[in-house]
Amino acid sequence: MHSLNIESFGYIAAILTTAAFLPQLIKTLKTKKAEDVSLVTLIMFLCGVVSWIIYGYKISSLPILLANTITFILNILILISKIYYSRNIR
Amino acid sequence: MHSLNIESFGYIAAILTTAAFLPQLIKTLKTKKAEDVSLVTLIMFLCGVVSWIIYGYKISSLPILLANTITFILNILILISKIYYSRNIR
Repeated sequence: MHSLNIESFGYIAAILTTAAFLPQLIKTLKTKKAEDVSLVTLIMFLCGVVSWIIYGYKISSLPILLANTITFILNILILISKIYYSRNIR
Repeated sequence: MHSLNIESFGYIAAILTTAAFLPQLIKTLKTKKAEDVSLVTLIMFLCGVVSWIIYGYKISSLPILLANTITFILNILILISKIYYSRNIR
């Protein structure tokens, strides 16, 4: 049996930390609220993800680059949904 | 003026995506609820973060290693708080 190589861990990590935000997006769209989700967390996280994209590009790490690009897209959608549904409450 | 070197982006990314979960933890502890925070997201994210720790160790990337270790601690605390407060509701 082959042991997992280095890149495998990068790809497993990439898939999990990227796909992880899909249930949050689906939950937000279904319940039409994300009141308990911190706005500061979302904004700081998005800024961090952009920095990971730059870092991943510079060290030529495809897992970091891919994971963070999709993570960015999912989290910006969660942020937009959160703001949209909080406006509807008012 | 010096341009930012490669490692700087890693550290900026590390600090932002790590510190980002602190406002979520504080919000959860203050409001005593995290109903809107997806449980599936938290569990998948934690598994992914563990994989990033292994990957960061294997490629000898200190920013990845450090960031993900603290991210793991903060997210496990958010998960425990969410479960604790959801039990109190019942």
